[in-house]
Parts: sequence; structure tokens; C-alpha cells
Amino acid sequence: MTTSIIADDGEKKIFVNMVLDAWRTQNAKVDKFLAEVSDEQLAWPAVLGRNSGLYVIGHLTGVTDGLLPILGWGERKYPEFEETFVKKPFDAEAKIATAAEVRKAWKCVNDIAEKKFVEIPPDEWFDRHTAVSEEDFAKEPHRNRLNVIVNRTNHQSYHLGQLLFLTKNRED
Amino acid sequence: MTTSIIADDGEKKIFVNMVLDAWRTQNAKVDKFLAEVSDEQLAWPAVLGRNSGLYVIGHLTGVTDGLLPILGWGERKYPEFEETFVKKPFDAEAKIATAAEVRKAWKCVNDIAEKKFVEIPPDEWFDRHTAVSEEDFAKEPHRNRLNVIVNRTNHQSYHLGQLLFLTKNRED
Repeated sequence: MTTSIIADDGEKKIFVNMVLDAWRTQNAKVDKFLAEVSDEQLAWPAVLGRNSGLYVIGHLTGVTDGLLPILGWGERKYPEFEETFVKKPFDAEAKIATAAEVRKAWKCVNDIAEKKFVEIPPDEWFDRHTAVSEEDFAKEPHRNRLNVIVNRTNHQSYHLGQLLFLTKNRED
Repeated sequence: MTTSIIADDGEKKIFVNMVLDAWRTQNAKVDKFLAEVSDEQLAWPAVLGRNSGLYVIGHLTGVTDGLLPILGWGERKYPEFEETFVKKPFDAEAKIATAAEVRKAWKCVNDIAEKKFVEIPPDEWFDRHTAVSEEDFAKEPHRNRLNVIVNRTNHQSYHLGQLLFLTKNRED
């Protein structure tokens, strides 16, 4: 029932829904891309003839996997994705996870995040996240947990704009 | 003074600041791109060897120019940009605005939007925008004016991810 949005928790709940809706919309677009792209296409260079599509999906997976620790709500499920796809730049010679492994991890980290996100009371979204100091947060209260999702959603959109180069029939 | 964020209008003001901060961050990235890219590079095909960079910037300009009418706060400054860059797909044969004209319009529409955005009381951001019916808004109150900016920010990130193909030295 969408009408419960106001009844429950007022404005905070509406705002949490705005941000999570945008996040889910972008995730669904990546899902759609993954349903359309072949494993072979994922191996092609997507960005400036450099990063492969697989690396970009691994990167997004590693970043989403890092959400719960940043928000203070859990641990990483795939710490090795942070090493390979977040801390290190793309290296065509490096042995990285297979397309099947990356696809599975992408789905898994998103399921874990979604499950947590719907459990969290709206109030908690407006608390400080672990990457901002108490002192900075007192001065800049908009640097809260929900703001991390705002920024990560844009990060995902940005990379999604690059991935379409791998599937010619996608809309731009 | 960042501490005034809470004092003024409480939570709504914090929300508005979160969303506008993300919007400004993306705008600043497009500005940085425009400072680095030459007019010649802008004429190159940026997206699937199809849309030129100039078309993409014109498209973003036309979309931003359409913000005030959608939000109910003003009229378009460059209605011809909607025709050329929003309603029509890219056509290599069509005569479109020059790089200098598009660069100028991009700056102008963003200045107009920013000027308006800082004037608007936080409350008004949570009202219905003109593209959602009263009936739908009653059921889905998160489809408010501020939500338009959330979505437009992601739209901008998406295209920004494509534009970097025109300047090799950009970060990905």
C-alpha cells in the first residue's frame, strides 16, 4: 500500500522511499543489461578500450558489497571483490572472477542490501555513516547514511552509461 | 553556514540539501568535462558511434531547461533545444546549434535553475510536480518536485559516463 508511506513515519519515510526508488531503478537497469549481454560481450573492453564490461560489473558489485560496512549494518560478503575491482585498476592480464561468478555476486550483494534496507527504520538512515567524523557530521548533517545511497546511485548510473557500448541494441 | 541547515527548516531542508548537493556535484563534473573538451572533440560521435558529444550536451541542456516548467516555477529559456535535442534523435545531417551556442545555453539554464532552487522554501519541494496527477500523488507522495531532481541527476550521471569517451585523459 503506497498510502502507508505517510502514515508510518511521515516525511522521513517519503524521503527514504525517494532515494531507495532511484537506487532500485538503477539496479533494475543493470539487471536488464546483464540479462541482455552475453558473457563474451562482457569480456570486451567497455571503457576507452580499457576496462572490460566484466570489470565494471565487478566494480559495481564490490561497491555495493561495501555499503553495509559503510552504513554500519554488516560486513562484506565478497572482500576479494574490493581487492580486485575497487582497489586495483583493470589489468587485462590479471586473473579475475568469471562472468558467472560476477553475475552471481552482483545478484547476491543486491539481495543482501535490499533485505537490510527494508528492515531499517527511517530514522536510522539519517544518522552518520562510518566514513564521516562526528565533528564533520555535526556541521554537515546531510552527510548521512541515506546520502551514501544518493551518491552510489549516481555512481551506478555513470557506469551504466558506459556499459551500453557492449550491447548495440540498447536505448541511450 | 552549514549549521543553519537544521536551524532553518529541519529535516526537509536537510533532504533538499542532499538532493541539490548531488545535482550540483554532477553539474560540476559536466562543467569540468566542458572545460577540457575541445569544440572539435564535441563533434565526434560519443555514443555508439552515433550521438555526437555536442548532441548529448544539448540534450542535457534541453532537459535542465525543462525543469522549471515541470516543477511549475517558470518557462523554458530555449524551447528550440527541446525540439532538437529532446524530442528528436541525433541526425548527423541536421543543422543544430554550434558548440559555442550549446556551451552558452548549458551555463545559462544551469544558472537560472540554481537561482530558482535556492529561493524555493523547502516545503515547496515536497509538492506535486506538473507531470504527476493529483490522484497519483495522493497515493505516491514521493513523486514530488525534489524527486524530479533525484532522477535528473541520475540521468546526467548516465550521460556523463558516455561523454568521457571524448577526452582520453579523464578518470573513469
